[in-house]
Amino acid sequence: MITPTYKRLTQKVDLVRLCQTLMLVSNVTWIVIEDASTYSKVVTNVLNNCKVKSVHLHEKTTTFVSRRKGGGGHRGVEQRNRGLKWIRDNHGLKDSKMGVVYFGDDDNGYDIRLFHEMRFTSIVSVWPVGFVGMLRYEGPNCQDGRVVSFHTSFRPDRTFPLDMGAFAVNLQILMNKPEVYINHKSAAGMLETTFLSDLEVKPSQLEARANDCKNIYVWHIKTEKPKMPYERQNPGDKTIEV
Amino acid sequence: MITPTYKRLTQKVDLVRLCQTLMLVSNVTWIVIEDASTYSKVVTNVLNNCKVKSVHLHEKTTTFVSRRKGGGGHRGVEQRNRGLKWIRDNHGLKDSKMGVVYFGDDDNGYDIRLFHEMRFTSIVSVWPVGFVGMLRYEGPNCQDGRVVSFHTSFRPDRTFPLDMGAFAVNLQILMNKPEVYINHKSAAGMLETTFLSDLEVKPSQLEARANDCKNIYVWHIKTEKPKMPYERQNPGDKTIEV
Repeated sequence: MITPTYKRLTQKVDLVRLCQTLMLVSNVTWIVIEDASTYSKVVTNVLNNCKVKSVHLHEKTTTFVSRRKGGGGHRGVEQRNRGLKWIRDNHGLKDSKMGVVYFGDDDNGYDIRLFHEMRFTSIVSVWPVGFVGMLRYEGPNCQDGRVVSFHTSFRPDRTFPLDMGAFAVNLQILMNKPEVYINHKSAAGMLETTFLSDLEVKPSQLEARANDCKNIYVWHIKTEKPKMPYERQNPGDKTIEV
Repeated sequence: MITPTYKRLTQKVDLVRLCQTLMLVSNVTWIVIEDASTYSKVVTNVLNNCKVKSVHLHEKTTTFVSRRKGGGGHRGVEQRNRGLKWIRDNHGLKDSKMGVVYFGDDDNGYDIRLFHEMRFTSIVSVWPVGFVGMLRYEGPNCQDGRVVSFHTSFRPDRTFPLDMGAFAVNLQILMNKPEVYINHKSAAGMLETTFLSDLEVKPSQLEARANDCKNIYVWHIKTEKPKMPYERQNPGDKTIEV
């Protein structure tokens, strides 16, 4: 699982919760990539205390161009690509060619059944995601294990109208196309379609998960930023990491 | 653990995450009390799928008086009291007099070490809570296992300047005072002080946890309400529970 992360008030609690979710999943490697030019103490501490096999990387964003300035407004791209590079660089060391790669943000909510089901991914497996695309849920409509259409509001003409958290890719597909990364020059909302198209995946190859795409096992949510108006006048013990 | 809950967009994902956190804790009974006049389908489904021993109750709030109208503005009181009553009613059936009771809201974040440490509570154990009281953290300052003062901004004159998530009570203390419930008539911010005072706990009896109150193992946070402006015109499959 590739997880980009960035410094914010709730970064620690979000990472602690995600660590604990992944503790319930067997045989997972959690690749956490900080958007920073060095390793932070808080992420280091979380990963040191986390009973999940993890890889700690950092990669400072340099390509971000806001949508107002005509860019795609994508965040997390260079971090995810750093994670992909790590997997490709280190995969040859392993015995098995088996494996599945998933992009999972640190503030989303996950039902662990998602991880159990994505293990069995031949090419690309898919499922709906809660609270994404300004809808209650967005994602594939499925029938007998195959995708028949997509429920979305944003550009339904996309080849893969999917959120980054809505699919997992078999490792072999990624190893077969070692030059393919997530393209930050994609138009807004087109990252996923560009990536899967560059991998030469076909819509007919998508494998339905989560009870034929009828269950929600991942929610695209955010932890509210805490308000602390009294902190400046009454700061407490600065050595306590929150 | 007594958890009040109420209907909202993120109720399911918050409960799923908390269930999964508690799956990492041995020997816990999760008492979930809905603020509703009947059992809801969504909570029933979460608890049925949750691999934690749970008790499902409901208790509709009738006493809530907003602060503007001169009330304490407390929510969750009747649900927590319903949970307390269940524990007292059912405790006699068990073999052991051992046990610890904790009030844990469904949207907070928890480091599982909190639950490991609160097991050993003779009277009342305490620890700091992140993002509470409009501070980075609020709670006891401790030394050698005892509380020496409190870090708080709101009414530091309170006998127990503690958040509801900042303490756990030995079951015997609750059984010795069967008439004591959380008093919804307490002034704003005084629920905890009134409750512990009514239980005849003394500040000197508080037991420090979480590395002598230097680690944060619980964060008082909220999941942001999702925005779904396209939902009305494009509602998707209504049978999908999000």
